[in-house]
Amino acid sequence: MHFNHYLLEGHTYFIAALNERLSALRAQGRDIISLIMGDPIEPTYPPVRDAVVAALQATEISQYPKNRGDGFYLEAVANWALRYYGQTFDPAKEILSCNGTKEAIFHVPLLFDWSQGQEIWIPSLSYPVYEASARTLGIPVKYLPLSAETGFLPDLDSFSAEEWQRCQLFWINSPHNPTTALADRAYFEKLLALAERYDFLVCSDECYNELYYTEQRPASCLEIDSPRWLVFRSLSKRSHMTGYRMGALISRNHEVIRLLGKLREPIGVGTPTFIQQGAVTAWNDDQHPRDFAVGYRRKRDLISTALKAAGCEVFGAQAGFYLWFSHPHCSSSEALLQGFIEAGLLITPGTAFGSDGEGYARLTYCVTQEIAEEVARRAAQVKL
Amino acid sequence: MHFNHYLLEGHTYFIAALNERLSALRAQGRDIISLIMGDPIEPTYPPVRDAVVAALQATEISQYPKNRGDGFYLEAVANWALRYYGQTFDPAKEILSCNGTKEAIFHVPLLFDWSQGQEIWIPSLSYPVYEASARTLGIPVKYLPLSAETGFLPDLDSFSAEEWQRCQLFWINSPHNPTTALADRAYFEKLLALAERYDFLVCSDECYNELYYTEQRPASCLEIDSPRWLVFRSLSKRSHMTGYRMGALISRNHEVIRLLGKLREPIGVGTPTFIQQGAVTAWNDDQHPRDFAVGYRRKRDLISTALKAAGCEVFGAQAGFYLWFSHPHCSSSEALLQGFIEAGLLITPGTAFGSDGEGYARLTYCVTQEIAEEVARRAAQVKL
Repeated sequence: MHFNHYLLEGHTYFIAALNERLSALRAQGRDIISLIMGDPIEPTYPPVRDAVVAALQATEISQYPKNRGDGFYLEAVANWALRYYGQTFDPAKEILSCNGTKEAIFHVPLLFDWSQGQEIWIPSLSYPVYEASARTLGIPVKYLPLSAETGFLPDLDSFSAEEWQRCQLFWINSPHNPTTALADRAYFEKLLALAERYDFLVCSDECYNELYYTEQRPASCLEIDSPRWLVFRSLSKRSHMTGYRMGALISRNHEVIRLLGKLREPIGVGTPTFIQQGAVTAWNDDQHPRDFAVGYRRKRDLISTALKAAGCEVFGAQAGFYLWFSHPHCSSSEALLQGFIEAGLLITPGTAFGSDGEGYARLTYCVTQEIAEEVARRAAQVKL
Repeated sequence: MHFNHYLLEGHTYFIAALNERLSALRAQGRDIISLIMGDPIEPTYPPVRDAVVAALQATEISQYPKNRGDGFYLEAVANWALRYYGQTFDPAKEILSCNGTKEAIFHVPLLFDWSQGQEIWIPSLSYPVYEASARTLGIPVKYLPLSAETGFLPDLDSFSAEEWQRCQLFWINSPHNPTTALADRAYFEKLLALAERYDFLVCSDECYNELYYTEQRPASCLEIDSPRWLVFRSLSKRSHMTGYRMGALISRNHEVIRLLGKLREPIGVGTPTFIQQGAVTAWNDDQHPRDFAVGYRRKRDLISTALKAAGCEVFGAQAGFYLWFSHPHCSSSEALLQGFIEAGLLITPGTAFGSDGEGYARLTYCVTQEIAEEVARRAAQVKL
């Protein structure tokens, strides 16, 4: 038996590696607050849980969920998009459910034929699933350099026509994990024009889009009339529902949605109907993400002030729940990590997201207010 | 953009195609009972639902589920295997959870490298996901002929050493969908010896294993000491939990489990923790599948007697909840299907599972007792 080469490589999903380090430190009796997981530890929007319980109590007989999502769920997503963006989507032809966006991100490359050397383009600092999916499937990846100079967005002018011609799937994630960079509408429009010219699909992972601290909400492909985007939206962050596994795929390209539906049928990624019933409650309400954002903003201010007091430079931080930062004394992420561990804080070294992350680190502030205050106390005393 | 060739082919997942036919017939005012879906319409084992509700009510804060399964879930599977088979498995090294076996079946070929022309071997009549997965991933498939003469099991003596050398993954499904054929222990042992000699993995889909009507339970790889099998077990049929999406992967091959765990990490196929908590209740009880089997056996007897009265030949039917049958007057499955539609019953033509199904059809009896009685009345009057 010959195993998949990618699985045989020594790499470990960075969270697993950091958690091992955390266990070792705690085994030594060290008091460490872990700030590595983007997994909210505040309550799910309460009506969701009540609705799931009620749906379960009404479900004596369990039946297979629909892979593309039940009609009532797809309608709720369409209603949300209409309310929130003023855009009309056809639930039957333009929306699919997903069992959390992680699985949908992993599977989307299977939509395409890759036999002609086409590539998947991925920002050099990224949510690791884009790369894990491409590498597991043996698809060539092009890593797009990111730096503070480019505002941590790929420089779309830096690639030649010959390079663009090999692109078949372009990953963009705004608000960006890990750097919090925001693509504005002009950036999306430019990218979509390139997609039209060079015949590729823009996969826009917008899972942090409803947690923002600016007056204007972040730009979204959903507002741009083009058949060249496929948008991934999630309830995980928006409604604190990471453990429910529920999201949506949206596109104006009917062929993309039709073939994605066909692809996903035998994969069996339908979400239990009782969870879809609860999720409707989440999509139907636009206020709770705003309320959550008020709390996150307070924690961001607290911790980011402390980081600056310790001499760190903090980038962006206008959306999501991450802080991306560096320190003039640290040219390596490992040095940053060591300094924070000394102060009792576990952060994620920027290199966990790619080599362009050297010298940076990511910290999550999706923690309780009490922990955020302790994090700020410790962060202010970090010696680097 | 070049789409995946397999998705562009005209094929439709057979249930979707038959459901379209059903809608058309009902739109004409026809009274049709559909017997095509293997989706139990009797209640889930009740303590499961209560346990899921209790778990949800205790879960104010939702967190990502563990992809490999929570420790308490893996322990429950290990305890079941020890009680039921007298076999000890290490939950940390020999068991993984899955989000229903469908997704696990779809994903398992990704465990391997296929660049040397290795093949996936699939019985010519099969659960369609084995083929859909291989074809979506572009892996060569070898279809193994099945017939009444071979008891609807592949004839392991009919392949040359040269052929076996190309096999890397062998799908076996016993009790078999759609034919209900049972592989006995000797068959499994012979297959596993071939796997050892020719270096392949036997993927044993045993999702119907606990619904049987013989004195002895069906054979399982779990009872055979070999590192050459990977077993797929499901709560869908055993505990009437199709809508909860919960199963387990078991192997004595630690490298297979380790790499599968690694493969499945970025796919994000963890099942919500509150569902795992309920599922433990299902694995902890061995009596309810026996009770369910009593009901299924009664329905099987009723409907199979009626089919025989109409002149059909019924095969196997010692396990699962399908009847696989033919009729001396019908050389085509379409003729069988037409005759049954005339009598108000929708069945699945054998050809939906592969060309060796020509002249056969499958009917599910996972229906209520009341419907089973009506099905028997109609089946006895089928004119072929």
